[in-house]
Amino acid sequence: VVSKLPQTGTTIFTVMSALANEVGAINLSQGFPDYNCSADLIGLVNKAMNDGHNQYAPMAGVMSLRERIAEKTEKLYGAVYNPETEITITAGGTQAIFTAISAVIHPNDEVIIFEPAFDCYAPAIKLMGGVVKSLPLEPPNYRIAWDMVKRLINHKTKMIILNSPQNPTATILHKEDIDELSALVKNQDILILSDEVYEHLIYDGQTHHSMARYPDLQQRSFIVASFGKPFHATGWKVGYCMAPAYLMQEFRKIHQFLVFAVNTPIQYAIAEHLKNEETYTGLPEFFQQKRDYFRQGLQQTRFELLPCYGSYFQSVRYSNITDEKDADFVLRLTKEFGVAAIPVSAFYSKGIDHHVLRFCFAKRQETLDKAVDRLLKV
Amino acid sequence: VVSKLPQTGTTIFTVMSALANEVGAINLSQGFPDYNCSADLIGLVNKAMNDGHNQYAPMAGVMSLRERIAEKTEKLYGAVYNPETEITITAGGTQAIFTAISAVIHPNDEVIIFEPAFDCYAPAIKLMGGVVKSLPLEPPNYRIAWDMVKRLINHKTKMIILNSPQNPTATILHKEDIDELSALVKNQDILILSDEVYEHLIYDGQTHHSMARYPDLQQRSFIVASFGKPFHATGWKVGYCMAPAYLMQEFRKIHQFLVFAVNTPIQYAIAEHLKNEETYTGLPEFFQQKRDYFRQGLQQTRFELLPCYGSYFQSVRYSNITDEKDADFVLRLTKEFGVAAIPVSAFYSKGIDHHVLRFCFAKRQETLDKAVDRLLKV
Ligand SMILES: CSCCC(=O)C(=O)O
Ligand SMILES: CSCCC(=O)C(=O)O
Repeated sequence: VVSKLPQTGTTIFTVMSALANEVGAINLSQGFPDYNCSADLIGLVNKAMNDGHNQYAPMAGVMSLRERIAEKTEKLYGAVYNPETEITITAGGTQAIFTAISAVIHPNDEVIIFEPAFDCYAPAIKLMGGVVKSLPLEPPNYRIAWDMVKRLINHKTKMIILNSPQNPTATILHKEDIDELSALVKNQDILILSDEVYEHLIYDGQTHHSMARYPDLQQRSFIVASFGKPFHATGWKVGYCMAPAYLMQEFRKIHQFLVFAVNTPIQYAIAEHLKNEETYTGLPEFFQQKRDYFRQGLQQTRFELLPCYGSYFQSVRYSNITDEKDADFVLRLTKEFGVAAIPVSAFYSKGIDHHVLRFCFAKRQETLDKAVDRLLKV
Repeated sequence: VVSKLPQTGTTIFTVMSALANEVGAINLSQGFPDYNCSADLIGLVNKAMNDGHNQYAPMAGVMSLRERIAEKTEKLYGAVYNPETEITITAGGTQAIFTAISAVIHPNDEVIIFEPAFDCYAPAIKLMGGVVKSLPLEPPNYRIAWDMVKRLINHKTKMIILNSPQNPTATILHKEDIDELSALVKNQDILILSDEVYEHLIYDGQTHHSMARYPDLQQRSFIVASFGKPFHATGWKVGYCMAPAYLMQEFRKIHQFLVFAVNTPIQYAIAEHLKNEETYTGLPEFFQQKRDYFRQGLQQTRFELLPCYGSYFQSVRYSNITDEKDADFVLRLTKEFGVAAIPVSAFYSKGIDHHVLRFCFAKRQETLDKAVDRLLKV
């Protein structure tokens, strides 16, 4: 068979997690906690199953969950989404992203992405016959040069994909970025796909500039979020997409034939869990404490810390240690020193390598301690 | 935005289930049980969550589950699949079907489907730029005229989609069909997508002619199955795809960026549950009893029963009652008589209407009793 994605190998997350398991390294590569989600939440799933909520959910999702999401969004960002027509529950953030791209990208449409970019955007665009226009960003701050974005825009530009807090760089969009973006898309037929799966993981009291805050942007945006990261259950695979009805209508046309519906008992459980807003208002503190602890430890090592504004990743530059490629160095780090990370060059399409590695700090304190001990030896 | 699927409305399952809820009708439309899945299985999910299996599963699925599937497939059909490279766990059968189609259908490739056809095949094909070549089948037996299939085949034919036991017709492939199919694809570059989600729901001691039984067909097939129907938990959304490594490699390229991975605790639970083969060997008897009970009841009504060899659907013809279109009659049946069904014309692309309705009999005895009581009034 002729491959639809000839250049695509196995995602770096699978590669690194498999290697970490194989050699018994501490796995700070793929982003997931090494502690369990809350017993309350598990109890709610168990209750939903025992209450008989085990058959197909509605195609767009369990209504009480959509209602809780609408409430949360209005409270946090001031935007009013109609749960009936503008919110759809998905099998994780990745499915929401794939579906949004599938719903609107036609052959030859151009999509602007910022690199390093989460690795599911480009394959979905290419699969739909779209063209990826990527703008590479530079450490340590990975700021978007909006005049460069402007130069990429033409009549074929259909969509811009944003991701804040950003994976893998842990940077965020600032108010100035929003202003530049607004000016840029004004009077243009350009959609936005805003990957906000780390919306609740933002530190130092900063504001999450959700597209939902800005009506001119909101009305052209698919906003994607997830419950896996905030609720410490990345394996439950329940996320959602919000978009104005004219976009959500197209999204659901694909969604209904791509997955039809999403795990029912977990939707009921999360709907119940969300009734208590402390389930997410406490997250910045919880993760900031881990970030600070890990950064403190890393400060004793030879690695250069890059800024971390949000997400659960900490990147480091190692150019002062070796000039090995990050893909090589990360293998050595995993095998010889017993700590697995993600080489950030994997998120650049053109092999750009700034000698940066990404570590996940959503780990127990003793795991971070052990990792730092090992990294001290480098 | 320009729609990617301009002709596509909301799936008939959503439409009919919503209407049934709205008017309080007995819902025999969408296929799902009205009884709970086993307490054992719920207990296993609960245990998996409490044991901490709540983070990302491997991209291809939890290995113990893939191993159990390989064992079951070898025992039932004699085919040896390598769980490492030839089995992938999906978010239900629908996601497996969408992914298989996405993985191999290029623009202008032709795909042969048999109508009435489950409604997710055609949109996926069209989304990939493929061309649907549909062969309409006729009640009461809906047999495939293989000489007609032969006439549809040309150098653009990339895939044939099969579905046995078939939804909505409840027919099955017979050994003669397999022989005809084998002869037809011999020396041709044609793939098979075999939707076998009802593999365990087959009655009167008949054989399920899985593609896995026939090496010449198996080596060109994606076989899709699901745990939702056999384990009475359609809302859990865990299924799988099996294919030879050269096809599975392409499947996973899409899968990893479409959904990445599937609900972890449910995978662990099903892997454990499958250790006891009685969890599925008893299914034909369990469902056949329901089929027979429902058919007995329907025999007292004016509806003409069509054959039911497998699946959990019973179709009836009503041409002797009225010449209303099935889409109209089903609305009246739901609103005036309080029983929701699926109009089988919804599964024909060209509006073919044989005056046939599909009922789901995966229901408690008292539900079937009540439905029959109401249908007696028609
Ligand atoms: C979808 S798997 C990867 C998890 C994750 O978000 C990350 O590690 O970046
Ligand atoms: C995917 S929703 C429909 C469930 C089903 O298989 C059916 O009713 O035919």
